[in-house]
Amino acid sequence: MEFDLIDRIRRHTDVHRDDVLTGIGDDAAVVAVPAGRELAVAVDTLVEGVHFPVGTAAADIGWKALAVNLSDLAAMGATPAWALLALTLPDSDEAFVDGLARGFAELATPLRLALIGGDTTRGPLTVTVVVHGFTAPGDALLRSGARAGDAIMVTGTLGDAAAGLRCLAEADASPYAALIERLNRPTPRVAAGNGLRGIATACIDVSDGLVADLGHICKASGVGAEIDAAMLPRSSALLTHFEDADTIDFALSGGDDYELCFTVPADRAGEVSANMARLGGGATRIGRIVEGAGVRVLGLDGAEMVLSRAGWNHFVA
Amino acid sequence: MEFDLIDRIRRHTDVHRDDVLTGIGDDAAVVAVPAGRELAVAVDTLVEGVHFPVGTAAADIGWKALAVNLSDLAAMGATPAWALLALTLPDSDEAFVDGLARGFAELATPLRLALIGGDTTRGPLTVTVVVHGFTAPGDALLRSGARAGDAIMVTGTLGDAAAGLRCLAEADASPYAALIERLNRPTPRVAAGNGLRGIATACIDVSDGLVADLGHICKASGVGAEIDAAMLPRSSALLTHFEDADTIDFALSGGDDYELCFTVPADRAGEVSANMARLGGGATRIGRIVEGAGVRVLGLDGAEMVLSRAGWNHFVA
Repeated sequence: MEFDLIDRIRRHTDVHRDDVLTGIGDDAAVVAVPAGRELAVAVDTLVEGVHFPVGTAAADIGWKALAVNLSDLAAMGATPAWALLALTLPDSDEAFVDGLARGFAELATPLRLALIGGDTTRGPLTVTVVVHGFTAPGDALLRSGARAGDAIMVTGTLGDAAAGLRCLAEADASPYAALIERLNRPTPRVAAGNGLRGIATACIDVSDGLVADLGHICKASGVGAEIDAAMLPRSSALLTHFEDADTIDFALSGGDDYELCFTVPADRAGEVSANMARLGGGATRIGRIVEGAGVRVLGLDGAEMVLSRAGWNHFVA
Repeated sequence: MEFDLIDRIRRHTDVHRDDVLTGIGDDAAVVAVPAGRELAVAVDTLVEGVHFPVGTAAADIGWKALAVNLSDLAAMGATPAWALLALTLPDSDEAFVDGLARGFAELATPLRLALIGGDTTRGPLTVTVVVHGFTAPGDALLRSGARAGDAIMVTGTLGDAAAGLRCLAEADASPYAALIERLNRPTPRVAAGNGLRGIATACIDVSDGLVADLGHICKASGVGAEIDAAMLPRSSALLTHFEDADTIDFALSGGDDYELCFTVPADRAGEVSANMARLGGGATRIGRIVEGAGVRVLGLDGAEMVLSRAGWNHFVA
């Protein structure tokens, strides 16, 4: 079924780019990287029931499968160019494929991202997307450059997607639409990532949860981190529907937000905040890089919090 | 589980390349395409029970998942450079991952193909591989260049993999080991594809079966094709174990051989045969491109054969 379905998807995602020499329809795509540009490449798979709930709308799946990959490019400071889509489907459901392609295209088209290849196979619902983007030589944002004294910042707000996932179980989920939208339609911070090139010392996207992902920066950079829980940016939707302690839990541990967590020299944090505000989503200073290892979270009273089975609590010695 | 398993896979597949600037371990890989080279990109997914039988050895799955993708690059005449591996597994079975990585590496290492990225997720066993290779500008082998009068050729032998699949059901499959090896460990014709640049007018790899795949060349090129069944290259293993009519069926319709089917100007077929023989697998002239559309098969007596439920038969008017 490879050709028909990929052709169907192509019809929805018709972005013309001069650097695509051979697109969908041959054994491989052929593309040209512009002179003086390096290529960033990422791949992520979404599995039904693992990365999105059974029953998620096809368009949301298409959007999210691309978004999580673009978020990886954003975390490198790369400019998106091309994508490939490998789709495993239980059956040839054309309406589902159309929906998925529509969601994919809603995100791809404004970014001028071209779909250059794909594969469709029969099996349990799984969506793998590969994205390619450009960076200038030596300019990619890595996880390894954080230094003690750097400010830790995060774009947008944290915790909404995890809260949205919990709200899906409600009999009437409509009051939580804004949170569920964050779960189903995450916004990859492409412009923010581009704006951080040459300024951020390290960067990662928040897919597994802030503490886990900041932990990757700490490990790669050989440093520790302290977060002030009081500074965690939380949306009004989150603060409206949940207790304060729960919002902190979601912000610290909730995955699927796809904001960028990054470090900058402390004396540039103000400038970065202003720049990020101009890009729309904003960015908030939430802590500092320190000597040592691992991520510590300081509660509202300045005492360290620890992760227990029930969530983040004040540390009791 | 992403990091541990991908790290495990990386240990098996440690190919150093200067054009890999950031490999596995950040949000995306960063690579540099050499000046004056275009990039060929392909993606293919293998699903357990669809593309390989349940119970296939992990190393064979790892080999085959890469092989089918390298076969796409070979069909473009591209030189392999980098791969990404997205692996969905029912559980964190380290022995399985080691085996899969070992099979992947057995094929990747001699080709100096670097694994630059990956993703591991939990779910039904599915393996998606993305490969990148280099071509010279305008030099990629497309499906669209076949012209009436061209000779149709195919590398190696056809039908072994499909015959091997049938033999798996035998109580004692050991006499058919050579056929089953073709099914589990297909050889992508990378050197042959490279050798065809500038000579072949069209090229495709035989994954769905000769008639189906040659049909793609015909459609893309706006031509028809005639195949002489008597000329179909068949291995001694195939001819030893099956009736002549069955070997022709397998060669015409069996998938998974991953040989290259290509067209060349008729006066260059001899030169190409000699070149391909020097590369090891050889190539055989099996027919000709004609005006019109579609693929016709001529039997041993020169009469057209048709595909019935039982296989390819002489046409009975």
